[in-house]
Parts: sequence; C-alpha cells; structure tokens
Amino acid sequence: MIRASLPRLESRLQALARFGGLPGGGVTRPAWSPPHEEARAWLLGEIRAAGLEAWVDAAGNIFGGAGTGRFDPGRAVVLTGSHIDSVPEGGILDGALGVLAGLECLETIQETSAPHRRPLALAAWSDEEGRYGSLFGSRAFCGLLDAARIPEMTAVDGERLVDAMARAGFDARRAGEARVPAGAVAAYVELHIEQGPRLEEAGIQIGVVEGIVGVRRARVVFTGQADHAGTTPMERRRDAFLAAAEWALKARELVVRRGSGRSVTNVGVVSVHPGVTNIVPGRAELVHEIREPDAAVLVRLARRVEGLARRVATRRGLEVEVRPMSATTPARCAPRVQAVIEDAAARLGLTRQRLYSAAGHDAQNLAAVTDAGMIFIPSAGGRSHRVDETSDREAIERGANVLLHSLLALAEQ
Amino acid sequence: MIRASLPRLESRLQALARFGGLPGGGVTRPAWSPPHEEARAWLLGEIRAAGLEAWVDAAGNIFGGAGTGRFDPGRAVVLTGSHIDSVPEGGILDGALGVLAGLECLETIQETSAPHRRPLALAAWSDEEGRYGSLFGSRAFCGLLDAARIPEMTAVDGERLVDAMARAGFDARRAGEARVPAGAVAAYVELHIEQGPRLEEAGIQIGVVEGIVGVRRARVVFTGQADHAGTTPMERRRDAFLAAAEWALKARELVVRRGSGRSVTNVGVVSVHPGVTNIVPGRAELVHEIREPDAAVLVRLARRVEGLARRVATRRGLEVEVRPMSATTPARCAPRVQAVIEDAAARLGLTRQRLYSAAGHDAQNLAAVTDAGMIFIPSAGGRSHRVDETSDREAIERGANVLLHSLLALAEQ
Repeated sequence: MIRASLPRLESRLQALARFGGLPGGGVTRPAWSPPHEEARAWLLGEIRAAGLEAWVDAAGNIFGGAGTGRFDPGRAVVLTGSHIDSVPEGGILDGALGVLAGLECLETIQETSAPHRRPLALAAWSDEEGRYGSLFGSRAFCGLLDAARIPEMTAVDGERLVDAMARAGFDARRAGEARVPAGAVAAYVELHIEQGPRLEEAGIQIGVVEGIVGVRRARVVFTGQADHAGTTPMERRRDAFLAAAEWALKARELVVRRGSGRSVTNVGVVSVHPGVTNIVPGRAELVHEIREPDAAVLVRLARRVEGLARRVATRRGLEVEVRPMSATTPARCAPRVQAVIEDAAARLGLTRQRLYSAAGHDAQNLAAVTDAGMIFIPSAGGRSHRVDETSDREAIERGANVLLHSLLALAEQ
Repeated sequence: MIRASLPRLESRLQALARFGGLPGGGVTRPAWSPPHEEARAWLLGEIRAAGLEAWVDAAGNIFGGAGTGRFDPGRAVVLTGSHIDSVPEGGILDGALGVLAGLECLETIQETSAPHRRPLALAAWSDEEGRYGSLFGSRAFCGLLDAARIPEMTAVDGERLVDAMARAGFDARRAGEARVPAGAVAAYVELHIEQGPRLEEAGIQIGVVEGIVGVRRARVVFTGQADHAGTTPMERRRDAFLAAAEWALKARELVVRRGSGRSVTNVGVVSVHPGVTNIVPGRAELVHEIREPDAAVLVRLARRVEGLARRVATRRGLEVEVRPMSATTPARCAPRVQAVIEDAAARLGLTRQRLYSAAGHDAQNLAAVTDAGMIFIPSAGGRSHRVDETSDREAIERGANVLLHSLLALAEQ
C-alpha cells in the first residue's frame, strides 16, 4: 500500500502556519486579510511545485489537479479539500490539514503513478469560517449562494465583502459564476480535525462522519422599560436583562431535555441597553444558536425555544422579537463514501467510529451536488478555535493515509 | 404667608433647560461639558441679578447668598441647593428644580424682607450625577472626598476629571480645599422631584424624606471556559453567561425576599467574552448594585449576594470574583428638619408623607456636617432620568413654597 509522506505534509503545515502566525502559536488568518492573501499565493505555488495544474474560480476558491479539465461533466473528478482561512486566534490545523493532506495525497498519487480511473482534484474553499459569510466559497461552488445578499455581506469590523474581494482582484458580485456544472464532481471527501473530545476519549483513531449538524441562529431581542434603578419599585420593573437571563437558562434546558441527545445550544453574544449601572435594562439582545443533525428535530427545537421566549416575555410584561439570522440544513454523508472511508481505515489497521460533526463544514454544501463524506482525526483535549489546537503527528499521518486510500477507492468507483 | 413666584421660577427652569436642551425635550448637560459651563455662567448671572452675592469654591460648587460671609462658623447659614448637571438624555427638573426654587426662595425673602435670624444661602453642587465621581461637589464641601483618587477619576468617554476641570479654570487636585469649616452650616434642606411613583400613586402632594438609601456597587466577574459551541458536549461546558444569568435571577430574589422591603437591586451593565456567536462564553462581567436605607441590612445583603455568586460558580465549575466598586452609607434626615418641612406643608394645607429616597442626593453628604433634610414633589408617572421626566406646575409651586417656609423656619431656630 502506498503511503503519504508525513515529513512533507508537516513541513507544509509549518510553512502555512507562518502566514498570520502568532508569537505564542496558532494563527489569525481571516478570509481576504493580508496574511490570507499571502497564504493563497503560497498555496498556488505549492500546487504547481507538486506538478499539478492550479487555478481559481470567481468565488476565490483555489483548485489543483492533473488533467481534470476544470470540472467537465464528461470527466467527473473525485474532489478533496478544506480551507486555509482561520478564525481570529485559531489553530494551525483547522482547514489547513484537509487542504495540505489533500495536496500530499495528489502529489503521492502522481509520484507513484497509483492507478485511478477518475481524475482527482483539490479545493481550498474561501471564507469557510464566515468572516463575511460562512462557507462562502463552497456555497458558491454548489450553487447555494444568495447572490442578492452579496452587496450587504460585511465583516464584524464593518468591511464589506465586495471591497475585501476587490482588493484581492475578485468581483464578489460575480461569485455565483463559480457554480460547478451538474455531474462534474463524482464524489467529495474532506479530512478535518474533530474539534471535539469524543474520538480522543474513546481512544478511536479515525472518525467516519455520518452527517453534519444544521445550525439555526436567531437574534432574540427582549424589550422592557429603562427605569431608574433606585426609585422604581422592584415589582414594577420590566427588566429586559432578567427576562433574557431566565430565557437563556430555560432554553438551554429545553434543548438538552427535548432534543435528540445530540442537540447543542449556545448564547454567545449578549448586549444590554442602555448599559448603565443605575438604569434598569430596557433592552437585551442575545444571539442564540441551536445545532442538531436531524432537520425535523432542529426545526421543532427552534419553534419551542421561540415559544419559550414569548412565554417568558409575556409573564414579565415585556415584548420579544426573534429574528432568524441564518439556518443551515443538516447534511447526511453519502453511505458509499462512509463505506469507502471505513474500508480504507480497516485496511490500514485503524480503529474507527461513526459520528456526527457538530461544527459546520464545506462538505455539507458539497453534499448538495455529489456524494460527500468526511474523515475526522482526534483533537488533543478536544480543543479547537484556539491557538493551542493540535493533533498528534501520528494522528495526522493516519488521517492523510485514510484520505489517500479513500480517494483512490472513490476514483475507481 | 409669603409665596414664591411660580412664573419667575418657571421662566428660569425654561431658561436653564436651553443649555444642553434636546430637540424632543429633556437635556444632556453632563458636568464640565460645554453646555454645563454655559449653564454655570448663566446661573452666576441669575444669582447676581437677584441681588445676591455669587461665588464658587475649589470644587466648582456655585453659591449665592446675602451677607453670609462665605461660611463663617461665627455666623452659620441655613443652606439649600441641588445641582444643575444632568445625566445624558435626562429631564429638565432633576437637580435644576432644587437650585432654581432655592434661588426663587432667597429672592422672595429678600424682596419681602421676610424676617430670618440666620443668613440663608444657595448651593449648586458640581457633578451630582457622577460623570467623573457621583456627588463630587458636595463630597468636597463635606470633607468626604478621597483626594488620592482625584487624578484617576475618569468619565466613561475616557476624559480625566483633572482635564475637564482645568478647561473650566479649576485645579481638581485642590478640590479638597472646598471643605466647609465645622459649624458653618446650621441646617440644609433640598427640594427635589421624587423620581419614583409613590407620591403620585398615593395622591400625596409633599414627600418628607426620612433618609437616603446607601448604594453598594460591585463588578462581578464569572470566569469559565471559552469553547467551540458546536463540538463541546453540553455537560462539559463551563458557560460564564449562564452562570451570570442564574446568579442575577437569584440575587434579585434574595434582595427582594431577604431585604427590608425597601431594598432594591439592579444589574445594569453586562458584557460577555469573547462575544462570538459560536463560542461558549468564557467570561461574563456584570455590575450589580443594591440600595437600602438601613446600613446593617445593606451590608448583610451585599455579603449574601456575594456568597450566592460563589455557590453558583462552584456548582457550575467556574470561578467568580466580586470586586467592590463603591459604597455609600445610608443617610438619616435630621428629625428637626423633617418636623420643619412637615409643619410648613401643614401650614400650606398640603398632604404629606414620610418616605425614603431610593436615589442618591447631595443631602446625604450634607447630613455628615449638619442637620439635613429633603422635600420631594411627585414625578409624573414616576419617570426620571428620561427626557419626558416632568412634574405638574402646581406641584412645583407647592414644593417651592414648602421650601420657602422651611428655610424661614430653620433660619429662626
């Protein structure tokens, strides 16, 4: 059995980690930032140095392949990939591992002339982490982009996507042209770190992803009455923060108790107005998210949590508005891709386990246009989106080899 | 019985309301801001136009009087006053009423040559609302200023008190020199709007203030663990926001159930870190305050609320730090001043009720150096610190006349 080269892969991971690298480890390399642009240029060079053709599409996605004809339905490719952008103060493996292990696989296959009926290609999807819009590049590629929203897509710092992409030489308004022709991708498989503790704690080497959770986000705004915090009798107050606090606690219980067992929820953004020590909060705004792999359960939980907000608000004499922000549909990984990954892991003598991804991934968009699957390797301590995110080098090598043999098997189907 | 002139008082209230006046009503006139400086100059002119001597002290307090000798222990004055600074988007009566009704009383007494054994004086205390430090001017006057803290006193916008006062021609570091000699003030009485709904709802015309609540403020910081909001199992999360939410709800119940019945509490400032949709909050910071007229109850409640924070944090596997920010001691109004106010109201045929002030006032500092008391008039709808704060013109006239006859009575004692 042919094997990927761990030293070459590690060397590329270290090289990529220098773009946006932080003194204490980790990277800050958000989409379209200067370090991201340097990393894109570097990656295009690495693809070419590996003897592959390199190209970009209208969404800024980077591709590499040999004789793939740039997505020709007459010659469907087996595609692998991930992303090279990062969250602020993120780790060096999230996304980067899938892209550079994919490049390592394609280079190894080319060097060894390993037989493969279908052509193989590599993708680095733009803005996976959603500085402007999450999974932007793969959404464009899969025809899932809402083009009307592009002009208003804006980073937290206020920069518009159209301006950021213009700096990099792209016209964001034309990103929809990146859409791949139907039938041009025979299968998609992505290697990624788990970003959670399950594989490590179970002592399992390879995760075979069954599906990717859907995520529903909503802005929940409680409106009460800003009043003097000394002179207004307690029973007369319509305190928006206390309403929000009660709802957040109960919404968590509701999702845990009435969910699928895999359902998770978070309130990560909270603001209180006017935000003054001696004034009763008149308005509280929260951003609430629910993640769940079953679409019906996700919709049901979102409805119940909204109903709960109305009951809490009514009982406290407040108003509440629940404004949906985004909703992704849970994606199922293709059974044949899961079977190929499992078989590759078995032939390599590795322990494996089926699991759901609780984080969003580009593969969930690819699942709309082809048979898609994902390979997970354990994350040390389950850490992710942190500068100390890491995985053992043995785990990285195992993941790269499972990817290599999964690609070769899919190329024969 | 002599009477104050409502038209003259109303005309001055309208004139003062123009400094920092807002298009839809109300004022933004924070201490040492340009509109506040214009208002100070205007007030000095009005005092002089009323035939009184006008002067300022090292803390920027404005005074007016006739033959008072600028606080001579050999000739103790009966003092009235309040403040002319406002909260942002505040009302036109909070503070302004007490200063301008005081001026109206002194002018009326002068015009009518009403007999008074002791001299009378008027004060407009600087920075009552605490842009830099609450009750600043009256603290300086009463010797309660912590001079060592002056250099670090800073507004929310980052401006230092020393710079703001320097612009107005004062050296903030010398504000302690404003301290009044012992025995120079025979009594202090302040007219103010209630800022709450009790008088209006009880249909009572005059509030005789028995005491002013003490306020304890603390910054409460819960520290958990920032984790990926998808991949971290729910039972593994150490969510600082949910801990803060639970504590805020329980702290409210504790203060309501275990307090004196007059105890009130508020969480007006909330921030959550890192404040990102898909990251479990690792830190939540709240500013908590408790107000209570009984010093022992206030201390007991503060201790219980802190103990509650520790229990909530421990049970959820978090850390919590409770950092005291400020603490004022509850002040008792002098029985003889309360009796004088009640008698003046009775002679004017007005209904009256004893009550506590749930807001802080300069009178609480004056209570440390003399017999102090306060007169409240009803606030329409209990509204305060809002642009639509108002009181009926009849209520304003009643308040001014109770102040007038209280001052005359105190000047005879």
